[in-house]
Amino acid sequence: MNVYSDRIKNLKPSIIREIFKFTADPTVIPFAAGNPSPEVFPTAQLARIAADIFAEDPITALQYSVSEGYPKLRDWLKADMEAKEQFRPGDDDLIITAGAQQVMELATKVICNEGETIICESPSFIGSLNTFRSYNAKLIGVEMDDDGMRPERLDAALTANPRTAFIYTIPNFQNPTGKTMSLQRRKEILSVAYKHNVLILEDNPYGDLRFSGVDLPSIKSLDKKGKVIYAGSFSKTISPGLRVGYMIAPANIVQRSIAALQCSTVHTNIFAQMLVERFVTSREYSGYLENLRQVYKRKRDLMLGTLKFAFPTSVGFTEPEGGLFIWGTLPYGDGVEFARKAVSHKVAIVPGNAFSVDENEKTLCFRMTYATPSDEQIERGAELLAKCYLANVT
Amino acid sequence: MNVYSDRIKNLKPSIIREIFKFTADPTVIPFAAGNPSPEVFPTAQLARIAADIFAEDPITALQYSVSEGYPKLRDWLKADMEAKEQFRPGDDDLIITAGAQQVMELATKVICNEGETIICESPSFIGSLNTFRSYNAKLIGVEMDDDGMRPERLDAALTANPRTAFIYTIPNFQNPTGKTMSLQRRKEILSVAYKHNVLILEDNPYGDLRFSGVDLPSIKSLDKKGKVIYAGSFSKTISPGLRVGYMIAPANIVQRSIAALQCSTVHTNIFAQMLVERFVTSREYSGYLENLRQVYKRKRDLMLGTLKFAFPTSVGFTEPEGGLFIWGTLPYGDGVEFARKAVSHKVAIVPGNAFSVDENEKTLCFRMTYATPSDEQIERGAELLAKCYLANVT
Repeated sequence: MNVYSDRIKNLKPSIIREIFKFTADPTVIPFAAGNPSPEVFPTAQLARIAADIFAEDPITALQYSVSEGYPKLRDWLKADMEAKEQFRPGDDDLIITAGAQQVMELATKVICNEGETIICESPSFIGSLNTFRSYNAKLIGVEMDDDGMRPERLDAALTANPRTAFIYTIPNFQNPTGKTMSLQRRKEILSVAYKHNVLILEDNPYGDLRFSGVDLPSIKSLDKKGKVIYAGSFSKTISPGLRVGYMIAPANIVQRSIAALQCSTVHTNIFAQMLVERFVTSREYSGYLENLRQVYKRKRDLMLGTLKFAFPTSVGFTEPEGGLFIWGTLPYGDGVEFARKAVSHKVAIVPGNAFSVDENEKTLCFRMTYATPSDEQIERGAELLAKCYLANVT
Repeated sequence: MNVYSDRIKNLKPSIIREIFKFTADPTVIPFAAGNPSPEVFPTAQLARIAADIFAEDPITALQYSVSEGYPKLRDWLKADMEAKEQFRPGDDDLIITAGAQQVMELATKVICNEGETIICESPSFIGSLNTFRSYNAKLIGVEMDDDGMRPERLDAALTANPRTAFIYTIPNFQNPTGKTMSLQRRKEILSVAYKHNVLILEDNPYGDLRFSGVDLPSIKSLDKKGKVIYAGSFSKTISPGLRVGYMIAPANIVQRSIAALQCSTVHTNIFAQMLVERFVTSREYSGYLENLRQVYKRKRDLMLGTLKFAFPTSVGFTEPEGGLFIWGTLPYGDGVEFARKAVSHKVAIVPGNAFSVDENEKTLCFRMTYATPSDEQIERGAELLAKCYLANVT
């Protein structure tokens, strides 16, 4: 008997999640996972808010709730996103999800037939790629330069793949490269999507974590034709463990996504939604976010400074203006081999091929985060990594 | 442009969820929704546990966690279920989900190709039917008698549908009928499944809510061939808003389900898992559960007593030994028409066709819950319903 469905039989557990399990070993320095820094979790604030909720509104927090999400949180998000031109009342709608990953799942389930194509940046976030794979989508990666996905390559990919469900992109501080798509490039990508009448799925989990440079408009805010589905998240700003994200999209797509979410999680944990809503509407939230950005800026500076000092200049590192990740590029060799050696030196990094459409592709690259490790671990880890590199080069 | 995928384009929002929204009107007596009784929510206990978690282990509660679920909760469940012969170490594995509904989603995604058949009781739980529909499964309903799904009909349905992915059943206090499958029938259903080499998805959200009669072994506990996937939930015993359920299944199916869950919610809200784990392992849990059963027994007795007194004997009512639901059957007429009239009399009930494989089917039936309404509402609602019936009969 063939037990598994066609869509699932080739699906492998995420390499990252496997590495994450492995790094339960406290002697390994955690540059691999994409965990936000635990030192900034708003524990005291959430503890107080949780107590308030149990005192003031426990039945709402514990009973079944509506699938589209907690009304007060939806209202706050709509107003906030309307101010950023990412929500158009009358055209758009909004659904609260169990993290932004569920937005990828809902968008794929609602829009993409098995065998249809999804186009993404190459490299791109492995979690999303696996979601697309889990619906038997055909993945096509489009080469990036320093400004993001190359529009002429995207155009060619769309021409070659007329049955494309959508284009997936992470414009801000992309996972894994840390690169940010320029404003000009955002306009070009949108224009190519219009030309081929294809939707864009814009994933922006790190947008609130910009600590240098200037904010750029989202592709969603540039879209005048209702062609962009936007995914947001509180995982990187408040807590990933609570699993709260959201989708903003043309109302018809959100309505179908609500029906699809009813078939899965029924609704997002309502207690978590209330925790988030009370925190984001508190007076302390903006100060909290500003501090968060400063912490990440300090950590990025520390990691980048140590890496540049310890490595020869032939090894390249991106300089992210926000988010969690630095992307390294070796002058020659193989990212997988380097990651394997690094872990024997007690530093966990992710080899670049984990983010490739074809995981067997050989890459010179590797991803590191400065978010999860402590400052001491950042310095020691970067030095150990350079030592590992130099030991194997010479 | 065809925006929606084939699997989603015919999916409608659940009638129940729509009714649930409607019953936000506080003047309508809520016999329709399947909400557990808010009067028994363990608010004080969870408030204290939440404070303890924030004081003792906030990072675990707020950080990313492993996809298979909180290790301590998995361990407790495995031990508890092993004692009930529903978990076999070495053969089975367990994954924590965002409610039992996500088990239906994962099982369908992992096992059922589009166009394959899923066989269920007729009538059956609309939420699960919609999940199956959302993967383009072909649904076949099998007639029930008072002992549950009729085995000779199941056998015929399997013979007629050789591409069947699995059989879906709710053996205890079924939703919507309140019926419990007899022990003999459980053995027969399992034997028919063996004969056709087909899996069973056993959904048991109400099993801990038995308040009369004797506990019957689950089909999972009778299975010696690794053919049963078991879905459990804390939604009816602790809180549905927290969204915590679980799947127990042969290890290979759970492994694929973990990979599929990574592609959706990544992991179940870890704070909610910790709340549940600390509560179920507390000394007060068994007393709490016992009180819960007594509350539901009292409510069932009150509703059944009032209904039987107020309605003529030509209207039939099931007598559930647990769970949340009573199923009414009119001697003639139409459940939809009756539900429509009932709501104009300020009582919300669910027409039977909502639970049919073919929603256009005409049925004489309707579902009521005694869990959500207060005792006063139960008495007044049952009387209003009878008045509505009698006014339209004469």
